[in-house]
Amino acid sequence: MTGNDARYVIGIDFGTLSGRAVVVRVADGEELGSAEFAYPHAVMDEALPSGRRLPPEWALQVPSDYIDVLKNAVPDAVRAAGIDPSAVIGIGTDFTACTMVPTTTDGTPLNELPEFADRPHAYVKLWKHHAAQPQADRINALAEERGESWLPRYGGLISSEWEFAKGLQVLEEDPEIYARIDRWVEAADWIVWRLTGTYVRNACTAGYKGIYQDGVYPSREFLGALNPDFADFAETKVAHEIGLLGSSAGTLTAEAAAWTGLPAGIPVAVGNVDAHVTAPAAQGTEPGQMVAIMGTSTCHVMNSDALVEVPGMCGAVDGGIVAGLWGYEAGQSGVGDIFAWYVENQVPGRYFDEAKAAGKSVHQHLTDLTADDPVGAHGLIALDWQSGNRSVLVDHELSGLVVGATLATRAEEVYRALLEATAFGTRKIVETFNASGVPVTEFIAAGGLIKNPVLMQIYSDVLRMPITVIDSDQGPALGAAIHAAVAAGAYPDVTAAGKAMGRVRKDAYRPDETASDAYDALYAEYSALHDYFGRGANDVMKRLKRLRREVLAEGETK
Amino acid sequence: MTGNDARYVIGIDFGTLSGRAVVVRVADGEELGSAEFAYPHAVMDEALPSGRRLPPEWALQVPSDYIDVLKNAVPDAVRAAGIDPSAVIGIGTDFTACTMVPTTTDGTPLNELPEFADRPHAYVKLWKHHAAQPQADRINALAEERGESWLPRYGGLISSEWEFAKGLQVLEEDPEIYARIDRWVEAADWIVWRLTGTYVRNACTAGYKGIYQDGVYPSREFLGALNPDFADFAETKVAHEIGLLGSSAGTLTAEAAAWTGLPAGIPVAVGNVDAHVTAPAAQGTEPGQMVAIMGTSTCHVMNSDALVEVPGMCGAVDGGIVAGLWGYEAGQSGVGDIFAWYVENQVPGRYFDEAKAAGKSVHQHLTDLTADDPVGAHGLIALDWQSGNRSVLVDHELSGLVVGATLATRAEEVYRALLEATAFGTRKIVETFNASGVPVTEFIAAGGLIKNPVLMQIYSDVLRMPITVIDSDQGPALGAAIHAAVAAGAYPDVTAAGKAMGRVRKDAYRPDETASDAYDALYAEYSALHDYFGRGANDVMKRLKRLRREVLAEGETK
Repeated sequence: MTGNDARYVIGIDFGTLSGRAVVVRVADGEELGSAEFAYPHAVMDEALPSGRRLPPEWALQVPSDYIDVLKNAVPDAVRAAGIDPSAVIGIGTDFTACTMVPTTTDGTPLNELPEFADRPHAYVKLWKHHAAQPQADRINALAEERGESWLPRYGGLISSEWEFAKGLQVLEEDPEIYARIDRWVEAADWIVWRLTGTYVRNACTAGYKGIYQDGVYPSREFLGALNPDFADFAETKVAHEIGLLGSSAGTLTAEAAAWTGLPAGIPVAVGNVDAHVTAPAAQGTEPGQMVAIMGTSTCHVMNSDALVEVPGMCGAVDGGIVAGLWGYEAGQSGVGDIFAWYVENQVPGRYFDEAKAAGKSVHQHLTDLTADDPVGAHGLIALDWQSGNRSVLVDHELSGLVVGATLATRAEEVYRALLEATAFGTRKIVETFNASGVPVTEFIAAGGLIKNPVLMQIYSDVLRMPITVIDSDQGPALGAAIHAAVAAGAYPDVTAAGKAMGRVRKDAYRPDETASDAYDALYAEYSALHDYFGRGANDVMKRLKRLRREVLAEGETK
Repeated sequence: MTGNDARYVIGIDFGTLSGRAVVVRVADGEELGSAEFAYPHAVMDEALPSGRRLPPEWALQVPSDYIDVLKNAVPDAVRAAGIDPSAVIGIGTDFTACTMVPTTTDGTPLNELPEFADRPHAYVKLWKHHAAQPQADRINALAEERGESWLPRYGGLISSEWEFAKGLQVLEEDPEIYARIDRWVEAADWIVWRLTGTYVRNACTAGYKGIYQDGVYPSREFLGALNPDFADFAETKVAHEIGLLGSSAGTLTAEAAAWTGLPAGIPVAVGNVDAHVTAPAAQGTEPGQMVAIMGTSTCHVMNSDALVEVPGMCGAVDGGIVAGLWGYEAGQSGVGDIFAWYVENQVPGRYFDEAKAAGKSVHQHLTDLTADDPVGAHGLIALDWQSGNRSVLVDHELSGLVVGATLATRAEEVYRALLEATAFGTRKIVETFNASGVPVTEFIAAGGLIKNPVLMQIYSDVLRMPITVIDSDQGPALGAAIHAAVAAGAYPDVTAAGKAMGRVRKDAYRPDETASDAYDALYAEYSALHDYFGRGANDVMKRLKRLRREVLAEGETK
């Protein structure tokens, strides 16, 4: 790279509830300014804007909210950074995934067609839309029956969150909408399409969410066996030119330049996913380095030279994290979401009063109340499946469990048990990698939850590993900016750019032997419950969810 | 009885947190006035009055609090009734059980000896003192090994709550106190001793809590095998003259007349237990009538002509409820306690605000929020063991469980699941009776929880039985008054007195077929979890409690 320090890139991170833009110096990754814009429609999980009710497990978004981020957060970030917009040499983005936009050939989202404004299936299906589980179940059963070669790449299970299950749900529940879908587009690519005028499908989501393996999608025969009308789904609605991560998808259009206040014609990096894009920002793209992006949910991404089959992974994708390596992804579908649900729904008012008086968040207050308790003092074990289980069971029909409560149990103790449950869930994933021949040699944490040092210490103790943490509050946006720098030609590849622009606190947490020993005992209990409820010995969770759906559906029809 | 309507009896009910006195007309059971007095020391489960900390699972009381009830609640009730105290012809009492007072030969509680004021074992061990589980475990193991004939009378398990486990705990943890115990007295009998100056041991607690069967206690050989120093426990500290229920234990002393303002010399009925004493007040003393006294905990009492072995019963006792029949007792150690714990520890402030605005209790508000939901809509199953399981598992090392929570789960839904869990626990007890040859032909409910009609309807639906409810707010005190009337000679026996003085709303709730069908499915889930966690397949609850005790004990010694 040149010695010119006055060059900048913009990273834009599209999260679950808002988008964040950050202005980053190309030379060293310094973050000069950032801004956030909350999606006006947030997540629609109960009703459409029209008031029309949605069934359980749905989660939709409105695409114009993403454009509003471009119009607001980007100029705000540039202003906050105090830089000259003409010094911006590239843009990178990242998105939640698998988040799907049904569009016409020119990329118009179907919900923007007036006739479809009141049709749920015309809207964006957010990653946590979990209503396509019956379709996912059929995909998995058929793939196993047919011995499809791609199935082991996904740990043996395709998620209901992904492109094909969600697409099949549209076909079977609203065939008219399905017929009008010209492109079934990842939001990660849709936003780049809006920026550049060019539709390029990124290698990451194509591989992890789109079942694109060894250059092909699931076959016409396979898809037709699911549903005859689904046979041409991949070739007509999904397949498209693939772009490698870090390459340029095109250049900023005049229209998008007007939205953002940035120079038209600058390169825009190929789309990317919030978790994967963070790896170089956390300097975690070498084989064996697991980067856990811990927020609402947690994604675990790790590169390897080798392709092996790891049970219950979300996927192993060639170039899925950086070009040239096999990228593995695992995940926990609820983490911060669980803590937030608990605080909202199960914590008495006095804790809020105490937290306010102490000038801290309720989360921090609850955490602090048990921070000095010995491991096991609360007498509880929880399963962290309130939002289902992504890895290693890949089953969104699972649900939460808390065992051990007595009349002496306090709210902060249940909260602590939930923190620990998510750590046990992470250990389950790490152990599964280790047992499969792609050992985890370093654990790096990023995401909003790293701000809780007690939580991080629990993870270190439970994993018996030091934990390195990213030294940025904007990991995904910084990662997106790193990709922008590569797309703009400032660095030869993403790993090199990450070394210059990424930032970490190495081994910020180290395991405490006594705590680790105690957690081993609790983890054994977690594992027994995990297998009992998660591997078929007692499918009570699935039956309860089915009953709930049935009685609520009956209520709807009355 | 004579036609004289101006004769009254006093019933005094000693509960967990307070004592209540009620003035009742002998002729028809009309309640003319009542008063309550809260125990100044309530339940000591964290520390002694001195501040000395107590270990987990302890629950103590102070005997002088019971005398304060005599001094306050009785005269207050007489005043409230507006009667002439000289028209009172008898007194009856009932007490929590097994609640044990260690005394000298004259009945002085050991905690009142100055040298023992700071010794935990010198205090009353309340029924819910659960720290003698190791002793109970040894009693059960040895009794089974030796094939003791009394063991099947208690469903095969002696509770840690009862006289022998608690006594053995004293011996092994504080032998000096144990040596000073001249009498190991049920509080039910201690209060009668204080009223009459005479110690008479009531047939109810002697049988249910004192392992008194066929005229004898556990043998010297058995007790000595538990601990050589325990060999003479029954003969020296426990055994005493037995009084039948409804008979007179003696007459009111001048001292007690001064405390209460009642005439010296009137008969005082033999002591009784809160649950058992309620049966005649609920007109439920005929064979096959199960009376469930639903409050903090629930006791189920039922008479039968026959003696059979019912698994997991608290006991079958000759004359344990009324003289001349076999009295069966079962129980759920936490019911209202669980709901109270939940409201105190897991319900957000907004529910309190809403309840206040609506002018109702939080319990009622939470109940109402799901009252119209179809069965199964919450997707949850709970186990009602937050205070252990009395019947049919007889295991206080068990704990609570909630399965099925998702990020959509609301506080009122968990509350509803807890209500249902206690109904499932009751069904487990009823089914066990039915399967053992002493079928439950009628279900009668008493106790504070009958004020919640939604809860009562859930019980009716879950049990598939009509539910008759007692028509008195003071069931135990009314029952105690009925016993007073019999002791005073106003009626020939307790059943006859109950027919005249008891009161019910017959079949106040009837099962709804649709709800019952749905609950059958949930009950099947409850049963599977009940057996998995309660019958040894996964002893995680016990291991978690043990770990909790260990780490807290380690913390104490540091």
